[in-house]
Amino acid sequence: MAKSPIGALKKRGKVVLASGTFDLLHLGHVRYLEEAKKVGGKDASLIVIVARDKTVEKRKGAKPVMSEEQRRALVESLKVVDKAILGYEDFDIGTVIEELKPDIIAVGYDQDGIEKQVRKAVAKRNLPIKVVKIGKFGRDELDSSLKIKKKITQLYKS
Amino acid sequence: MAKSPIGALKKRGKVVLASGTFDLLHLGHVRYLEEAKKVGGKDASLIVIVARDKTVEKRKGAKPVMSEEQRRALVESLKVVDKAILGYEDFDIGTVIEELKPDIIAVGYDQDGIEKQVRKAVAKRNLPIKVVKIGKFGRDELDSSLKIKKKITQLYKS
Repeated sequence: MAKSPIGALKKRGKVVLASGTFDLLHLGHVRYLEEAKKVGGKDASLIVIVARDKTVEKRKGAKPVMSEEQRRALVESLKVVDKAILGYEDFDIGTVIEELKPDIIAVGYDQDGIEKQVRKAVAKRNLPIKVVKIGKFGRDELDSSLKIKKKITQLYKS
Repeated sequence: MAKSPIGALKKRGKVVLASGTFDLLHLGHVRYLEEAKKVGGKDASLIVIVARDKTVEKRKGAKPVMSEEQRRALVESLKVVDKAILGYEDFDIGTVIEELKPDIIAVGYDQDGIEKQVRKAVAKRNLPIKVVKIGKFGRDELDSSLKIKKKITQLYKS
């Protein structure tokens, strides 16, 4: 993680922090990030923490298809994202919050575990950070990396 | 395709046209689009034509994993892209060129067929359009949708 990731941003509005794996980027990811940034209002900046390969492997039991640097760079190439950074190998949301000092932390509809960790870390530090849960998008289509992987496996199994 | 896709752009610099399927978006796609836009110089606009499902099926023998509207919207959510539009069902590069009137058409390293069609259509109409071939990026990593599909199939086969 860079020393001062916010320093490089033209900080005018609120800083919103979002996070995720973003393996096989799809519209559900983009909509989640857009909604997250909207919560910050006018001139908000969106910083995204992209989970490292090792963290994903530890949590989900399997490495992502795309490497952490590919995932990070792809997320940063999105219009809605001001900065994308890799997380710590030993993911500690408390340290991340202390370092980035966001105004808002956005968690995805499928990030219950992360939401709990975030709320606990914020409460423990008594920080003025708003934690917001973002709804689900793309009700039916290929809106999750898992669904995409399943479809590919079905299409290409021989 | 919208009636006047360029009309909606603040056209100051040159208009660069790129095209592709963009199934399973990866860094190779982004780098190709970035290089394409660079060819247009300062203040260039990048319009991307995203191939329709039927066109892809006809050309490659299989439908893309992601639907055409998902692929288009995801491409348009990239910083480097000013506008992404779906191609015609019966892909006719001549009509596209006449309608969009780009200054530059960028073709990818793996778009030999398209390059031939483009050069023929430009020559036939005697238009002042530069056709530029963009090099390959990401030499070794998951830089093609096909490689990504293969890796997923290997990882998830049971």
